[in-house]
Amino acid sequence: MSGATPDVSVNFDLDAIVAPAAPVEKYIEVFLNERPLPANLREAIRYAVFGPGKRLRPILVVRACEAVGGAPEAAHAPAAAIELIHCFSLVHDDLPAMDDDDLRRGRPTLHRHTNEAMAILAGDAMMGLAFELIATRIKDAKLVGQVSRELAEGTNDMIAGQVYDTLPDFPAHTQPIEKLRTIHRNKTGALIRIACRMGALCGGASDPQLRAITDYAEAIGLMFQVVDDLLDVTQTTEHLGKAANKDADKGKLTYPGLIGIDRTRQEIERLRRESHAALDKLGPRAEPLRTLCDYMAVRSK
Amino acid sequence: MSGATPDVSVNFDLDAIVAPAAPVEKYIEVFLNERPLPANLREAIRYAVFGPGKRLRPILVVRACEAVGGAPEAAHAPAAAIELIHCFSLVHDDLPAMDDDDLRRGRPTLHRHTNEAMAILAGDAMMGLAFELIATRIKDAKLVGQVSRELAEGTNDMIAGQVYDTLPDFPAHTQPIEKLRTIHRNKTGALIRIACRMGALCGGASDPQLRAITDYAEAIGLMFQVVDDLLDVTQTTEHLGKAANKDADKGKLTYPGLIGIDRTRQEIERLRRESHAALDKLGPRAEPLRTLCDYMAVRSK
Repeated sequence: MSGATPDVSVNFDLDAIVAPAAPVEKYIEVFLNERPLPANLREAIRYAVFGPGKRLRPILVVRACEAVGGAPEAAHAPAAAIELIHCFSLVHDDLPAMDDDDLRRGRPTLHRHTNEAMAILAGDAMMGLAFELIATRIKDAKLVGQVSRELAEGTNDMIAGQVYDTLPDFPAHTQPIEKLRTIHRNKTGALIRIACRMGALCGGASDPQLRAITDYAEAIGLMFQVVDDLLDVTQTTEHLGKAANKDADKGKLTYPGLIGIDRTRQEIERLRRESHAALDKLGPRAEPLRTLCDYMAVRSK
Repeated sequence: MSGATPDVSVNFDLDAIVAPAAPVEKYIEVFLNERPLPANLREAIRYAVFGPGKRLRPILVVRACEAVGGAPEAAHAPAAAIELIHCFSLVHDDLPAMDDDDLRRGRPTLHRHTNEAMAILAGDAMMGLAFELIATRIKDAKLVGQVSRELAEGTNDMIAGQVYDTLPDFPAHTQPIEKLRTIHRNKTGALIRIACRMGALCGGASDPQLRAITDYAEAIGLMFQVVDDLLDVTQTTEHLGKAANKDADKGKLTYPGLIGIDRTRQEIERLRRESHAALDKLGPRAEPLRTLCDYMAVRSK
């Protein structure tokens, strides 16, 4: 299957770039073992968190921390927290009243593996534990306040994005492209934005560094979702052997559906360059973020 | 209907004691109006929060703040936050996969008023907004860290209590009374504990003051639930016109079921005295907390 933008030539060692995922997973495991919890709740959370996953958000937290000169360990608490938030959102999205999914990445979803009540409660607990982790594991009081603000705002924007997407209630006369941007900016963009910002804050970013990281994050956050839209279309096309626009036929807004495939590819390339330009201000320590961006631009799944 | 402990004679002006509820409700309303949210999500949250409610937890926050010498306004952010958490827990508890309740306090539950997906997402958002409120509205950085830690730990203990209660998974050989205490301490006690502690922290409590408030909170937190157990039995008895133990027959652990009605009444009185003793260290400013305790001991619903 071809990538989203096969015309962009990129070389990267992805294994090296994603290496920070392993210590963050270990950090979550230790935290969950130390925190007193009912045994079945702990098992449900472990099941939801330790399934296969790209760990994109925690990797961004660590890499953003390093990009401004911080040590990776300084980013482990917010990296663990954002993965808990991401996994909580997947558990609740999969529920019968939401997307009603039986499988996620080849395994039964949590409510199929356990039951619906446990999936609701485990999701709730994962969100709460993310905030507890920030409040108990970060030692600098001012930083706790800054990071928990980012985490709260990003989480709530993500939930708002889910509402915009599945239970749309836009003001009358909102243009389709504006609806789509609102959905993307909140549903996917918010967590990517705060992943980078929390990492930068924990790395002791200066104001200009934080601004650069934020610009980078907003560009890749939108790009991530535009690529997703494009992959939906190309995957559908290849899978069904017929023209795209399946999502558009279902009334679902997508970039290819609204502006066509060619302009969607141009938009991805524009956002890729925008994110690179933001990183130029940070010097060579930001190289892994650049590689991550390029990977996200050409990914095929 | 008779109260739980009709032999205790108490005089109090409840209207005066619960007066702090109104400004906290107003505070939540302003916060919800200012926070950008999808219109239907905002309406769902408003429906869930602004239904009839005792507002016990926010009142405890404000009264605990005053008891250590703080101004009531200093407690409004955590008071609003804990009410959002409490209401989120009710919304999720009412879901079909949980208690499957159609009515709460005479009105359709949120998932009946809107739909299940919205009830799940609105509950999620209410939890997240509680943390956002603490992180954005409290100005002192150290206090943000302390209060968000309390809020997170209390919320997670409450969720753990819900799991212990509805999906019990205790270690083998755990005694019934120990199971019951674990459920009560977490499910109801945790939020009452942090209500009082957050209020005291925002009021600038000294360590001995915080200790006294914590002792008070733990006593009334357990008492609140023991009274609930007793009311379940007495209400059931009166309603059905037959002997109690309906909950016990269903396998549900309760204090009257485990130790009998007389010893349950004695336990309530013991906890009432314990909470009063804790308040003795705080002087006359703690009088409203004493009155609240007495009200909770004799309440009939």
